[in-house]
Amino acid sequence: MSYIIRPWVTRDLKDIMHLIRESAAFHKALDQVTTTPEILRDDGFGKEATFGCLVAEVPPERTSKNGHTIVGYQFHYLSYCTWDGPILFGEDLYVVPEFRGKGIGTSLMNKVAKIALEKGCSQFRFISAQWNQPAMDFFTRLGAVNVTTQDHWHLCHIDGEHVRKLAEQSRK
Amino acid sequence: MSYIIRPWVTRDLKDIMHLIRESAAFHKALDQVTTTPEILRDDGFGKEATFGCLVAEVPPERTSKNGHTIVGYQFHYLSYCTWDGPILFGEDLYVVPEFRGKGIGTSLMNKVAKIALEKGCSQFRFISAQWNQPAMDFFTRLGAVNVTTQDHWHLCHIDGEHVRKLAEQSRK
Repeated sequence: MSYIIRPWVTRDLKDIMHLIRESAAFHKALDQVTTTPEILRDDGFGKEATFGCLVAEVPPERTSKNGHTIVGYQFHYLSYCTWDGPILFGEDLYVVPEFRGKGIGTSLMNKVAKIALEKGCSQFRFISAQWNQPAMDFFTRLGAVNVTTQDHWHLCHIDGEHVRKLAEQSRK
Repeated sequence: MSYIIRPWVTRDLKDIMHLIRESAAFHKALDQVTTTPEILRDDGFGKEATFGCLVAEVPPERTSKNGHTIVGYQFHYLSYCTWDGPILFGEDLYVVPEFRGKGIGTSLMNKVAKIALEKGCSQFRFISAQWNQPAMDFFTRLGAVNVTTQDHWHLCHIDGEHVRKLAEQSRK
């Protein structure tokens, strides 16, 4: 299977957005997607860009059934653990269905692990849906530990209106 | 109750480290703490610093029983959601036991929410231990949603040796 893993460039934006939406639809959360190729460009390629994205690209003669050469992606950013120091945090790992089982997901994980080491991180963290058993099995095979199951760490979100309300009460 | 919430400075490093260890001990995870005041300084005050820390400080005449004027802290960093765009991620929120119930935790959350808005984030995310019911109740009162319980998002870690092993298999 011929493919390359490389950092994204601006010409990938539309394809990545397409895959982000495909992944969100798989999570039955398409209505939660408010990003656009323009937003991703401004946030990801500006001077203050805080995250990176890896893409898996196949040759033009082997496109996905939707005609894309970008068939997988992985977002990541530096974060920090007060116990461990720098860690790399992953957001999304996606490979289009007809290209699964060919090692592309593993290659994306290999490359992001390499980035983690280059940035001095001893740990790679990410979020996965517990019901997505094939994904959980895949991550477990790569050495991942589910610390929600093991240590009862739960993820919490404070959204929009509540963030504004909290901020308004900030002491001068 | 007289206290201020402000960004950390290098003279806070030892006090913050003391509180990080106190918090880790509360989580029965003191053996997982490898950071030191020097590591926090190099990572948090260098040119490439990727995270911030807020501290709660009381006047010298009202120190904690351990003699500290820094009685609470909160770490945060910018992260990115492919669905929502920029988000602020929190790591640790801690107030020493004898200073709890005085609004210090809420003031730290107010200030971090303000930072989130200033940085263009519509969401504040953090991890909390499910068994820490007082913390969970506190966050719920502030508008937090536990997306592990609600949407089955689980947190996974790939550590040290497994990161190195993955990286070694990275395609040239």
